[in-house]
Amino acid sequence: MKKYLKILSGILFLGVLSSSFIMCASPPKKSDEGIDPGFCIHCHQGVTPGLFQSWVESKHAKNGVHCITCHIDHQAASEQKSMVFPEKCGECHKKQLEEFQKGRHSIAFDRMRIQGEYLAIPQEIRAAFCERCHSVQKRCNSCHTSHRFSLKEARDPDACGACHLGPDHPHKEMYETSLHGTINKITRNPERAPRCVTCHMPKGTHNSSFGIARGPVGTRSIVVDMKEVPISREEEEGRREEMLKVCMGCHSKRFAKEQLENADQVKVEGFKLQEEGKKVIQEIEKEGLIYPSLAERMPHPTEGRTLVLADPQLYVGTSHIERLFFTMFKFHNIRVWKSGYHFSPSYTHGFGWAEMQLDLIDIQEEAKKLRELFEGKKK
Amino acid sequence: MKKYLKILSGILFLGVLSSSFIMCASPPKKSDEGIDPGFCIHCHQGVTPGLFQSWVESKHAKNGVHCITCHIDHQAASEQKSMVFPEKCGECHKKQLEEFQKGRHSIAFDRMRIQGEYLAIPQEIRAAFCERCHSVQKRCNSCHTSHRFSLKEARDPDACGACHLGPDHPHKEMYETSLHGTINKITRNPERAPRCVTCHMPKGTHNSSFGIARGPVGTRSIVVDMKEVPISREEEEGRREEMLKVCMGCHSKRFAKEQLENADQVKVEGFKLQEEGKKVIQEIEKEGLIYPSLAERMPHPTEGRTLVLADPQLYVGTSHIERLFFTMFKFHNIRVWKSGYHFSPSYTHGFGWAEMQLDLIDIQEEAKKLRELFEGKKK
Amino acid sequence: MKKYLKILSGILFLGVLSSSFIMCASPPKKSDEGIDPGFCIHCHQGVTPGLFQSWVESKHAKNGVHCITCHIDHQAASEQKSMVFPEKCGECHKKQLEEFQKGRHSIAFDRMRIQGEYLAIPQEIRAAFCERCHSVQKRCNSCHTSHRFSLKEARDPDACGACHLGPDHPHKEMYETSLHGTINKITRNPERAPRCVTCHMPKGTHNSSFGIARGPVGTRSIVVDMKEVPISREEEEGRREEMLKVCMGCHSKRFAKEQLENADQVKVEGFKLQEEGKKVIQEIEKEGLIYPSLAERMPHPTEGRTLVLADPQLYVGTSHIERLFFTMFKFHNIRVWKSGYHFSPSYTHGFGWAEMQLDLIDIQEEAKKLRELFEGKKK
Repeated sequence: MKKYLKILSGILFLGVLSSSFIMCASPPKKSDEGIDPGFCIHCHQGVTPGLFQSWVESKHAKNGVHCITCHIDHQAASEQKSMVFPEKCGECHKKQLEEFQKGRHSIAFDRMRIQGEYLAIPQEIRAAFCERCHSVQKRCNSCHTSHRFSLKEARDPDACGACHLGPDHPHKEMYETSLHGTINKITRNPERAPRCVTCHMPKGTHNSSFGIARGPVGTRSIVVDMKEVPISREEEEGRREEMLKVCMGCHSKRFAKEQLENADQVKVEGFKLQEEGKKVIQEIEKEGLIYPSLAERMPHPTEGRTLVLADPQLYVGTSHIERLFFTMFKFHNIRVWKSGYHFSPSYTHGFGWAEMQLDLIDIQEEAKKLRELFEGKKK
Repeated sequence: MKKYLKILSGILFLGVLSSSFIMCASPPKKSDEGIDPGFCIHCHQGVTPGLFQSWVESKHAKNGVHCITCHIDHQAASEQKSMVFPEKCGECHKKQLEEFQKGRHSIAFDRMRIQGEYLAIPQEIRAAFCERCHSVQKRCNSCHTSHRFSLKEARDPDACGACHLGPDHPHKEMYETSLHGTINKITRNPERAPRCVTCHMPKGTHNSSFGIARGPVGTRSIVVDMKEVPISREEEEGRREEMLKVCMGCHSKRFAKEQLENADQVKVEGFKLQEEGKKVIQEIEKEGLIYPSLAERMPHPTEGRTLVLADPQLYVGTSHIERLFFTMFKFHNIRVWKSGYHFSPSYTHGFGWAEMQLDLIDIQEEAKKLRELFEGKKK
Repeated sequence: MKKYLKILSGILFLGVLSSSFIMCASPPKKSDEGIDPGFCIHCHQGVTPGLFQSWVESKHAKNGVHCITCHIDHQAASEQKSMVFPEKCGECHKKQLEEFQKGRHSIAFDRMRIQGEYLAIPQEIRAAFCERCHSVQKRCNSCHTSHRFSLKEARDPDACGACHLGPDHPHKEMYETSLHGTINKITRNPERAPRCVTCHMPKGTHNSSFGIARGPVGTRSIVVDMKEVPISREEEEGRREEMLKVCMGCHSKRFAKEQLENADQVKVEGFKLQEEGKKVIQEIEKEGLIYPSLAERMPHPTEGRTLVLADPQLYVGTSHIERLFFTMFKFHNIRVWKSGYHFSPSYTHGFGWAEMQLDLIDIQEEAKKLRELFEGKKK
């Protein structure tokens, strides 16, 4: 029986391959319905063999989804630089598109474009920085990598980690240094330990904002909805309950609730410490000891000539004491409290809380130096 | 033959599963000997399926070790928040418990509780920081993760790395960036390259202090025994010989000795550099230029009103120049010399020695600024 | 048929093993042609079993390449501390040796020995730092790890990453945080995503300088040849074309060119920002505000008593403001532009560009403080 199945699958596989080869061998021609799929493959299996190979192994190829199904035709593909927008994918994957549009991934590019940080980066090089990740709004292949579109690949924590990492949002690092991430790394068995998608995309939902009650995107302390309006207390509690249901796949509700509430406390303590740093700088600014002063510097691209401490504070053109606070709120506090929810002791403490305390020392002594140096002096 | 083995193992496997299912199907009842194992499973395979699944696949399940074997009964489990202490595990794993009690893992929680660092952290959030790792004293499932208790998982370097990582003890990072760790990562074959347990728990010993002659826990330069008494020169040499025997599994004694003695020299150089930084600050303090001064600040929780430089120095409430030294001794020197013994050139040099030199520059210039700003002034 | 193949391979395998065992069982003897291979194995399979096991599994063992083939004899092996130089390997692997000698790996040790950084490190401990990696010039087993010499291991990105990592050349980290590295990590399939060798050693060339047009070794902005002479514009363009051919395995030429030219722009912007920092310090030095001054400090080991900013600037014995620039050019700018070519948004931006901007703020304010503190004063 097994033998027959093997032979059968062999025939099917050869079928896929040979149909491609036949298409390539035959001269490209235009049918009434549009460009023949063979037209693309005729050249592309030669000029971009890796791309061709990935497609051949994909479920798309097996189901007759060819180049022109997504790219329309050669001219259209060329005009939009081979990009395929989520709406196109949604023609077949309707449920996924609808869910995707409910989560913040679907506004990532638009939100980026009005951020001061983006506006302050040389226009020529934004492509290498911000847009490489924030383009997730415009392309499903941010996660479902071209042209293999493998579910296994998209579900791997490393797929999420390609963007969710680094000093200001080390989700990857926090997960990897938690017990969840550790067991996943050792076993690569999603039944032994949760991956990112286990908690953030349960049952395959493409609404990546699922269950986020207290741990919002960015560095703000409140969770906002898709229109940037803070969510209600009821909504918050509903989301917490949803997340708890996920935890209860493996843990008792008592244990899970305790862990999340412990994270809530960690968050409160992190922001409390951050406020201490903020106050020192607000006083220094009132005393006129900030250099360059608000009058001397370029205005903030979205906030104007005000002292911006914490989100949306920039890392460009501010004073040294503000920059010390930038590191405190943007790199270190985010590690403290986000690690609370991701259960990474090293990121909460060593890379987070300890660094925040060192930042506070630096800020306090810088304030003392500024007073000693510039107080009562004309600048 | 093979076929019969397969059928046989299939029957055995079904046996394990079905016995579980029979237990669950039958109504929970109390036997004379205590609660019937089926009592727990009756609910828990439904409410915590992941936990149940891990246990089903464990050697425990195969050998009839059920929930109540370790958790006693539902009330006891609830009262001690499902914790099972090493003494309980030791009822079956006697040798492992005895070895464990000879190493520093078995005093990790007690030692933590008297550390100034721990005392200086808000009480509510210690659970997310310190206790998550230091609880290794109280729970074998720090390494043998619940409820699978897989030897393969516990022996993986990532299992050790869940705690042994981060700025002040980057054992995981040092190992991963050594040739040992590199080959292990590529091959995942413990016969090709050592893992943490190869050198630190040879022949499966659970005394994790095995063979440590010059590289003590923490940031001190001397090795102490379980009662915090420095070990003798003879003990030290005995331990070095023991470790060399491990190296000689793959290397010649000449080569291994040369490498460890090179690490000894690296350690001497690291501490020499650290002393240079220390001296600068001791002078500044004598001159009364430290802010906040020892009189103005909270006393050290264990050392009182003294200038604490290096272990057990805190990262809270000190001056900027002391904080520069904190980073030097706690984060950077530890990388220099511990990487010496773990053979990671990037951690010894780039992340270690180079950073220490930069720290020294910062300390020296900060001293000059403090003198220029505050010398001869009333504070 | 399969069965016969299995039996056949079994016999062959036993043959290899038994021939080893026969050699070991028989008394060591000197043949006319030199020492009998059994002579080494007689002891070494007992005293260094891991080493022996690696060799047994190697292609060398299968092809009759024994200890003495490479190590000559026991005395020679002992005298040169078991090192085997590339020239010895080249006796069999001629093509590889010739290619190797065309790339910068083959001058890595010599170049290191004349670097100021190397000269400034305590002589006793250079072995643990610099030499561990730069010895690649002298030993093929830097990449082809002893004594397994596995091609699979040598081609793994982690093999390259054992040296190409850390603050001043995080090639490993940049690759791992790119989409290339991410897919490789998930799939471990070199046909799905390029590894280091795919682009830098295409078709197995051992000239590791292949195709490098704008991204030179070290922190300089220009590419030099093996004699340290900047390459011509034509050579540069030729190399770019060569690299593009590699990209075109998977990408269209239009796309690949666009990406590399985007990286060129990133590089220009990175060096522009670096220049801003440099200018501030050059002015401060002209004003005589650098401490220790050029007259007071040890001269640079290769440049003498001049202000060295950027390569070959040292991290030892300079002023705080110079040290701020050291971090800017050596750790942060290198991440900006090298990540441009390795397509890692987090290393280009978060770990690179953002850090450079913070460095610039620090440098500017330090300059202001130095003027306020020391201007017009005798030092």
